[in-house]
Amino acid sequence: MRIGIVGATGAVGQELLRVLDDRKFPVTELRLFASAKSAGKHSTFRGDQVTIETIGPHSFNGLDIAFFSAGSETSKALRSQVVDAGCIMIDNSSAFRMDSDVPLVIPEINAADLQGHHGVIAVPNCSTIILLMAVAPLRKFGTIKRIVVSTYQAVSGAGAKAMRELDVQSRAYLAGEEIRPEILPHQIAFNLFSHNAAVNEHGYNGEEWKMIHETKKILHDDAIAVTATCIRVPVFRAHSEAINVEFEGERPSVDQIRNALAEYPGVQVVDDAAKNYFPMPKDATGKNDVLVGHVRHDASNMHAIDLFASGDQLLKGAALDAVQIAESLIEQGLVKVH
Amino acid sequence: MRIGIVGATGAVGQELLRVLDDRKFPVTELRLFASAKSAGKHSTFRGDQVTIETIGPHSFNGLDIAFFSAGSETSKALRSQVVDAGCIMIDNSSAFRMDSDVPLVIPEINAADLQGHHGVIAVPNCSTIILLMAVAPLRKFGTIKRIVVSTYQAVSGAGAKAMRELDVQSRAYLAGEEIRPEILPHQIAFNLFSHNAAVNEHGYNGEEWKMIHETKKILHDDAIAVTATCIRVPVFRAHSEAINVEFEGERPSVDQIRNALAEYPGVQVVDDAAKNYFPMPKDATGKNDVLVGHVRHDASNMHAIDLFASGDQLLKGAALDAVQIAESLIEQGLVKVH
Repeated sequence: MRIGIVGATGAVGQELLRVLDDRKFPVTELRLFASAKSAGKHSTFRGDQVTIETIGPHSFNGLDIAFFSAGSETSKALRSQVVDAGCIMIDNSSAFRMDSDVPLVIPEINAADLQGHHGVIAVPNCSTIILLMAVAPLRKFGTIKRIVVSTYQAVSGAGAKAMRELDVQSRAYLAGEEIRPEILPHQIAFNLFSHNAAVNEHGYNGEEWKMIHETKKILHDDAIAVTATCIRVPVFRAHSEAINVEFEGERPSVDQIRNALAEYPGVQVVDDAAKNYFPMPKDATGKNDVLVGHVRHDASNMHAIDLFASGDQLLKGAALDAVQIAESLIEQGLVKVH
Repeated sequence: MRIGIVGATGAVGQELLRVLDDRKFPVTELRLFASAKSAGKHSTFRGDQVTIETIGPHSFNGLDIAFFSAGSETSKALRSQVVDAGCIMIDNSSAFRMDSDVPLVIPEINAADLQGHHGVIAVPNCSTIILLMAVAPLRKFGTIKRIVVSTYQAVSGAGAKAMRELDVQSRAYLAGEEIRPEILPHQIAFNLFSHNAAVNEHGYNGEEWKMIHETKKILHDDAIAVTATCIRVPVFRAHSEAINVEFEGERPSVDQIRNALAEYPGVQVVDDAAKNYFPMPKDATGKNDVLVGHVRHDASNMHAIDLFASGDQLLKGAALDAVQIAESLIEQGLVKVH
């Protein structure tokens, strides 16, 4: 596979390089793209130095798959150039997620949706991915009627600069120095705040709205009711979520839930009630699996259950899901090799 | 009023001194009690040095009100001594909260419950107080059927030592040093975890169970259904909560909700959607009011709404509520002055 990465110097771009290597992805050529200020620098992939380029008019010619992680505007601006070059775009941005001709894919859940692709495939929002990895295994127990989710989101979702900001602000706070937010809109050190995506006319911020609507698309279920509260917390790179799931009919037992989660690919059960040991971002960091636990029957609704999940935002929440999409395209014979 | 404070050197004890002073509480005598290792030290109150004592057999003789904040075991061990001395115990621990002869009071909500007191009054759990300050103003719109709440709890709830631990661990993490949790069970720096109270046979941790059952008692509503997920986050002293409230009947408009919150004593509306400015622990710290905002109609249930709240755990979550109980006892003529 001849692979391109657009946004190669970003937090997700760097993770893509590691994931492609770790998973022994069949890379025969690798081209890395970033903005002008990074052009000419190098990244190392499997021992080779790869020079970082800016995008030119023929950048995607001869490439099979291009991973995009440079923001919605870049993805929109380059879509037709990529598709016209016969290259498949796997896009981490929110640019095309809700487009009816763009599959929105978590391979464990809806890999079959790739079959109708038209050259562009979208990686869902990181919070949606982690939510659905915890919820999808439960669909075997019957229709899910409603989800109430509250997130505890790491700063990595706002990029490498936001990760540095958490570090810098925390040091400043502990030194008693003044804190001046630059990347994130509010102080993040020892604080938390509603996700920094604009609030829409329904009162939801953009991140919450994505969780509501991407869930319906990925699960092919317009009737599934979702409400979300998305909060940024002072954690570097793993998101956590408190998830309440209401079934249309009878709820499964706690043991049935644990077994269903344990059997599901990409999910690891962390649920030691005796030790009060449940999913934590510290443990999810660097792991491919989404950790799920604190499973219990909801005391407030006899059809509902409560769960807690943590997953690495840069891995399953972004880079890993993107590479798994590429792997699934190969497996299903859906990518044309030049 | 002749006042005693048991646990005077703790995080809540120190805050009690500040709150009594700030609110010009009528203190004519002040006695401070702590463990043997603090005895002989001093605290300053209104310019006077007060010597810290250990509890003796006659410690509560002549006192009108004793604030307890030294853990459940201490409250249980001293209850009869306090009551026999004719002193009222206002207890911040969970020792007696669910006892039928002990009022559990948030004065803005159920001050009238003080009328039946038998010498012991309990301050609710901090998370319950902050939840109900956001929810109680909405009861004028009809019966509340169900609450789904997820907390983002500061370390102050685990005491002054846990606050120091967050500081020490954060410095260690940033210096690349090993982290050894001593007070809290898991790493708290740049991490979060299920609240460190034992998990019961229903799968809920103790903190979650308190929120469920204290809510029913304070609101005098055994039918109100509550589920909670309680999470400790790396924040020093203000708790935040994502709250979903389902009404039995029609839900109020967002404006009606904002107005009801704004009118309620002890609540401040922070709800600037255009600026994405909602309650944050940074802003709630040091404030008496509980901040409530991010008010919206729940997209998943036409009877439900979503809110986000932040409140100072040491103030309204503990010391302030305790002092307000004392003020309400005076106002209602329910305390005998020696």
